[in-house]
Amino acid sequence: MSTSYQLCQSRSAGACPPLTLNRLQKLRSIIAEKGLDALLVSQPENRRYLSGFTGSSGWLLISDNRAILATDFRYVEQAKEETPDFEITQIKGALDSWLPELAFDLKWHKLGFEANFVSYHSYHRLSETIKSKQVNLELVPTTDLIEHLRSIKEPQELALIIKAVELTDAAFEQAKSLIHPGITEREAAWEIEKYLRQYGSEGIPFEIIVASGPNSALPHAKPTERIICSGEPVLIDMGARISGYCSDFSRTLCLEKDLKAVSCQLSAIYDIVLKAQLAAMEGIKSGMDAAQADRLARAVIEQAGYGDAFGHGLGHGVGLAVHESPTLGPNSSDSLADGMVFTLEPGIYINGWGGVRIEDMVIIEKGRVRVLTRSEKDSFQQSAIH
Amino acid sequence: MSTSYQLCQSRSAGACPPLTLNRLQKLRSIIAEKGLDALLVSQPENRRYLSGFTGSSGWLLISDNRAILATDFRYVEQAKEETPDFEITQIKGALDSWLPELAFDLKWHKLGFEANFVSYHSYHRLSETIKSKQVNLELVPTTDLIEHLRSIKEPQELALIIKAVELTDAAFEQAKSLIHPGITEREAAWEIEKYLRQYGSEGIPFEIIVASGPNSALPHAKPTERIICSGEPVLIDMGARISGYCSDFSRTLCLEKDLKAVSCQLSAIYDIVLKAQLAAMEGIKSGMDAAQADRLARAVIEQAGYGDAFGHGLGHGVGLAVHESPTLGPNSSDSLADGMVFTLEPGIYINGWGGVRIEDMVIIEKGRVRVLTRSEKDSFQQSAIH
Repeated sequence: MSTSYQLCQSRSAGACPPLTLNRLQKLRSIIAEKGLDALLVSQPENRRYLSGFTGSSGWLLISDNRAILATDFRYVEQAKEETPDFEITQIKGALDSWLPELAFDLKWHKLGFEANFVSYHSYHRLSETIKSKQVNLELVPTTDLIEHLRSIKEPQELALIIKAVELTDAAFEQAKSLIHPGITEREAAWEIEKYLRQYGSEGIPFEIIVASGPNSALPHAKPTERIICSGEPVLIDMGARISGYCSDFSRTLCLEKDLKAVSCQLSAIYDIVLKAQLAAMEGIKSGMDAAQADRLARAVIEQAGYGDAFGHGLGHGVGLAVHESPTLGPNSSDSLADGMVFTLEPGIYINGWGGVRIEDMVIIEKGRVRVLTRSEKDSFQQSAIH
Repeated sequence: MSTSYQLCQSRSAGACPPLTLNRLQKLRSIIAEKGLDALLVSQPENRRYLSGFTGSSGWLLISDNRAILATDFRYVEQAKEETPDFEITQIKGALDSWLPELAFDLKWHKLGFEANFVSYHSYHRLSETIKSKQVNLELVPTTDLIEHLRSIKEPQELALIIKAVELTDAAFEQAKSLIHPGITEREAAWEIEKYLRQYGSEGIPFEIIVASGPNSALPHAKPTERIICSGEPVLIDMGARISGYCSDFSRTLCLEKDLKAVSCQLSAIYDIVLKAQLAAMEGIKSGMDAAQADRLARAVIEQAGYGDAFGHGLGHGVGLAVHESPTLGPNSSDSLADGMVFTLEPGIYINGWGGVRIEDMVIIEKGRVRVLTRSEKDSFQQSAIH
């Protein structure tokens, strides 16, 4: 076979930073358990988690004794800097133009791939090439192997997540002093983003939500030119990213000096959402099904008669991705365990009227929830800006 | 079958905005040509192009007489506002939990899907469900059907692209007055981003590159804490987004008052890159193969002895996505046509030393290139900041 790839760097595994080495070791056990010769990794956060590579294009190939990063011309130099302990191979073209040859040369016959992150088209072309070149290579779909490893945070990861959480807490303090009746949603969101970026967030993990009045009924609202008024709900949802690790945070405010002017419905709904969140915080235990955790909060909202108005899950894992494993929702098959970091974010949304969401980040430690987010939320009134 | 989806809105097609109607009409001809009953659309920009929906999750289903947007709880209200002429159906769960039933009810037997944007896992689960439920539904992979339509810009699209191009031109003017020896790459990139955002860019389509000295040799460099010095190349690459439509722009500067102090190599490389770009601008014609267009610029760089240092393609289409069809590169099978908007961005990158890239956006009109970008680039010296 001609050479469609070139291994241009190889350093001793001894130089591996302990974190990456530890992660590779865990993955190699899984690869062996599954009877695979190697695993092809394409999901961006999985790639970064295992190798440190932050480029937007590349493939990892992990076997019992090799750790290869395949990327194109644009990223080779960056890869060499970021992943000194991987062999870097410069590739050209789609998967099928280099992978069969490399697998043949390394005598791999069973190659796992991430079934959620390889398109039908790529898979199909790759299988056709393997057939036509008569390479003895079986492609084995896998799901969630690395996502599962990522869901349990190492102390170093937790430290970065806490920095990101602290930054969103600080941005919220700042936002409370900035947001006033008369400012538009878009202006408020941009002020929050500038704060986050200026104080160290690497980009922002998702578009900031500032949704006022009826707009707050859209769980994924985009900031508009709508002017924020007093007496209505203002839902803020934002995140920060520090060294790759994210935070995710929501509060619902009301810009109203006269508490009596705040509608009874808004106060009542706020209290139900908070009660639902606190029920989850108190009830969640290590070993619990994630669906059962969702149930703890959902039961409170259903009992108050708003079950249909809580249309999303209770929360989601947060780490290198702002949405990752575990999923806390009615249909989740995940289990909760010590070291998992996730959001608890019940909400009630009423079309045409508005919505309330309260979102904190937590970790499970010694079997119970520890809340990472510090911003106050004790009651709707206390969150209001006076 | 039980109802796993619910069509919750249906308006007359007569209310369709002309643009969307026109696009749907073209797509329906293609669907008919391919012998399909309907097409499933999941690629985000394709979804927006056909429907106007800007949410991050949802599926379109287009047949000869139906136009359906399937999305979950979080986006239903947004979908109703943005896509008044689609039927909105609220769905729950993955493709396989609602699509077979809907296809059965609508009597579709041949359903096209976008093979590059459906994962192996989704496809596999969907086929298994179709088999187990004994639904008479064939899944037909398609590629580039809508991408091809999108590559020819309508006048309304061009008007938005030009606004985005004007904004990057203005941001570059501002950057030239801001960037000085002593500022870090990260500070410079953040100043540029603030300008773009404050003057109307909806987010930014990609992370801004400010790469100085040896960092400019990385085609996709990330801004670092490196302090920009005089006499070295400073590569700036940025984009803006207006009503969804993008611009993409690069210039390479040198902060050096004394032109004699600029290295001969830097000046020489700048001139080669510019000559390569101008050769493409002059030589590209409607009907030309995109690979041949790439050749026009590449030949100049090769003749100057830097062929290996130009490792990426000459350019790419720009529209709702910042990288879209056509692809101008040595292995492209695209053809260029009137109405296509793309970048021309040759570059030379020398590891450890630095790089030069000059990127303009152009459109093909009446068979020839019209340059949309206005920022000066006549010579390396003229681009320098004095």
